[in-house]
Amino acid sequence: MKDGKIAIGVLGVDHRHIYGMLEGMLGAGCVAVAWWTQGEPLPLAGFVKRFPDLPRVADKRAILEDSSVDLVLIACVPSDRAALAIEAMHHGKDVMLDKPGCVSAAELAALRAAQAETGRIWSVDFSERFEVPAVTKAAELVAQGAIGHVVSTTGLGPHRHNPQTRPPWFYSRKGTGGILCDIGSHQIDQFLFFTGSDDAEIVSATSANLAHREFPDFEDFGEIVLKSANGRGYIRVDWFTPDALPNWGDGRLFLTGTEGTIELRKYVDVGGAAGTDHLFLVNKTRCERIDASGAGTPYFAKLAADVRDRTQTAMKQNHAFKATELALEAQRLAEVTAGYKR
Amino acid sequence: MKDGKIAIGVLGVDHRHIYGMLEGMLGAGCVAVAWWTQGEPLPLAGFVKRFPDLPRVADKRAILEDSSVDLVLIACVPSDRAALAIEAMHHGKDVMLDKPGCVSAAELAALRAAQAETGRIWSVDFSERFEVPAVTKAAELVAQGAIGHVVSTTGLGPHRHNPQTRPPWFYSRKGTGGILCDIGSHQIDQFLFFTGSDDAEIVSATSANLAHREFPDFEDFGEIVLKSANGRGYIRVDWFTPDALPNWGDGRLFLTGTEGTIELRKYVDVGGAAGTDHLFLVNKTRCERIDASGAGTPYFAKLAADVRDRTQTAMKQNHAFKATELALEAQRLAEVTAGYKR
Repeated sequence: MKDGKIAIGVLGVDHRHIYGMLEGMLGAGCVAVAWWTQGEPLPLAGFVKRFPDLPRVADKRAILEDSSVDLVLIACVPSDRAALAIEAMHHGKDVMLDKPGCVSAAELAALRAAQAETGRIWSVDFSERFEVPAVTKAAELVAQGAIGHVVSTTGLGPHRHNPQTRPPWFYSRKGTGGILCDIGSHQIDQFLFFTGSDDAEIVSATSANLAHREFPDFEDFGEIVLKSANGRGYIRVDWFTPDALPNWGDGRLFLTGTEGTIELRKYVDVGGAAGTDHLFLVNKTRCERIDASGAGTPYFAKLAADVRDRTQTAMKQNHAFKATELALEAQRLAEVTAGYKR
Repeated sequence: MKDGKIAIGVLGVDHRHIYGMLEGMLGAGCVAVAWWTQGEPLPLAGFVKRFPDLPRVADKRAILEDSSVDLVLIACVPSDRAALAIEAMHHGKDVMLDKPGCVSAAELAALRAAQAETGRIWSVDFSERFEVPAVTKAAELVAQGAIGHVVSTTGLGPHRHNPQTRPPWFYSRKGTGGILCDIGSHQIDQFLFFTGSDDAEIVSATSANLAHREFPDFEDFGEIVLKSANGRGYIRVDWFTPDALPNWGDGRLFLTGTEGTIELRKYVDVGGAAGTDHLFLVNKTRCERIDASGAGTPYFAKLAADVRDRTQTAMKQNHAFKATELALEAQRLAEVTAGYKR
C-alpha cells in the first residue's frame, strides 16, 4: 500500500496489453510505483508516452522486494510469464497477467502449486471480456434472465496480423503457446463465464497455418468446440482481419438462450453505427440494438477490492486456472490431431 | 413440355417450402400442370391460395404417367421423399426436392443408383442458398476474388419453432432425419459451395434436445465442424428463434478469405437496416454494407436450362448427393457421440 492505495508494479511491457492493464488499475484508484522490462521491446515507447512519470527500474528485484507493492502486472513474453508470476507470488505479491497466463501444462501446474502455497491472487486480464463494456452489459442482461439459460456461445475473434509490429516470439509456437493457448483463451473464458460453467470438455480443436507460409511456426487459424453440463461453445480465432477494417478485429459474441439471443459487435459495426460496444438483444418482447458503451469495465475495481479484502469477486481463482487449462488442452489436442511433433 | 415450356408436377405439399420451389420455377418460365398430396397437410391452404388455378389430382400416377411432365417438385414428409423421387425418376422425370433430400444412408444409396440408372436430375432446393439473393451476391464477389481464397465458413441457422404449425412428423427423428440431416444440410451445401470443395470430412457433430423436453424425439440444437482440403467450416442450427424477431430466423453466413471477409445477414438486420439480404464486405480497400436484395436467385432458371439441355449448371449432381451424404454422416456421428440408440 502507498498513501492508503493499492500499489502496483509492472514487470514486462512486451505486449501492448500492458497499457490497458495499468490504465484499468489506475482508473480503479490504485497507484503505480515502478516498471521493469527486459531490453527494449516495441511497446516500450507507447508505455513511456502513456505513463511518463512512472520510473523504470533496471532490476526487477527493486519491484519484487518493495514491500509496498501489492499487485504486479505482468506482460512479458508469454513463455516467461509463469516463472515471473511464481517469483512474484513467492515475494508476497498478487499478480495480474496479460493472456495467455502461461504456455505449458507444466507451467500451469507450477502456478497452481505456487498460488496454493502463497495464497496470492493469480488473475488473467482476459481483455476481450474485462475491457469490453458490451460484455459487462451482456452479463447484466443474462443475470436478469433476459434470454433464459445460455445454452450456446459462439465467439469469433479475428485479429489483425500487423507484421510490422510483431517481435520474433510472436511467430514462434514456444513464444505464444500457439493460437488457441494465446487468443483462444479469451474465448474459453467467455464460454465458461456465460454458461456458468466451472469446467468443460474440449470436443474438437484445430490450429493451422493456412496462408502465412513465410512464418512456418506461426498459426493463423484456430477453432475449438467445447461443452459443459450447461452448454455448448464454438470458438474461431484467426489473424485474417482485412486491411480496410478500421479496428484490429471484428470480434463477435453470440449467446443463444432458451428465451432469447444476444449478439455483441464489440469493436466495430461494419456499415452500421459508429463507435464500439454494440449489443443486439432479441427475446420474447424485445428486438433491439443497445448502445452498451457506457456499461463500464468493473474487473479492475473488483480486482482492487479482492487484493484488499482477499476475496474473489473479479474472477474466481479456479476460473482463471480452468480457462487457461482448457486453452492449453485445446492447443494440445489440435496439435495431436494435426500430427504435429512438438 | 407443354406449349414449348418445361412442365412441372408437384408431389407433396407437406412443407411450406413448396411455395418457393414452385414460384421459383414459374418465375423461370416453366408451367405447372397439376399437384398431388396425401391427406390435408397444414401448408395445403396456403398452397391453394397461392396457386388457385392449378388442379389437384387424387392419384399421383396422374402426374407420374403424364408424359408432358418434365420436372417433379417434391415436398412430402421427408421420410417419404426418397421413394417418391426414385419412382419419379423411373418414370423419366427430373426431380427437385425440398431439403432434406432423404433421411437415411440406405435411401441415399438407392437414390444414387436410380439417378445413375435413369440419367435424371436429382436436385435439392437448398433454399438458404438458392432463395437468398445475398448468397448470389456473395458468390459473385468470391468468384471475382474480392476476399481471396475462402478458408473458413461459419453458418448460423436459427429457426423459429412455431409449434402451432408443426405436424407430428416434425417432432420425430424418423420423420425429419434429425436436425443435422434436416436444417443442417443447408449449411453443408454452403460450406462445399463457398470453399469450392467436392468432398469434406465431418470433424465433430452434435445434436441435442436442450430445452424442449415435452417433445422427447425432437432435436432443438445441432452443430457440425467439417473440413476439406480447401477450408474449414462450422455450422450451428437450432430452433431457438425468439418471439420478437420479425422473421423466422436470423440466418448468418461468415466467410473468411485470405484477403477479406464477407458476412451475410440473410433475412433481418436487428436494430439496423430494413429489409433482407444485407451483405458486409471488408477487404484491402473496402469496408462496407451492400444491399444485395436485387442479386436474384439464378438456381431456378439454371435448373430449367439443365432440364432442357441435360447440363449441371444449377448444381453439380454429385454436389447434391455429397451435401446430403455429409448431413447424414454428421447426424450419424452426433448420435453415436451422444450414445443414442436408433
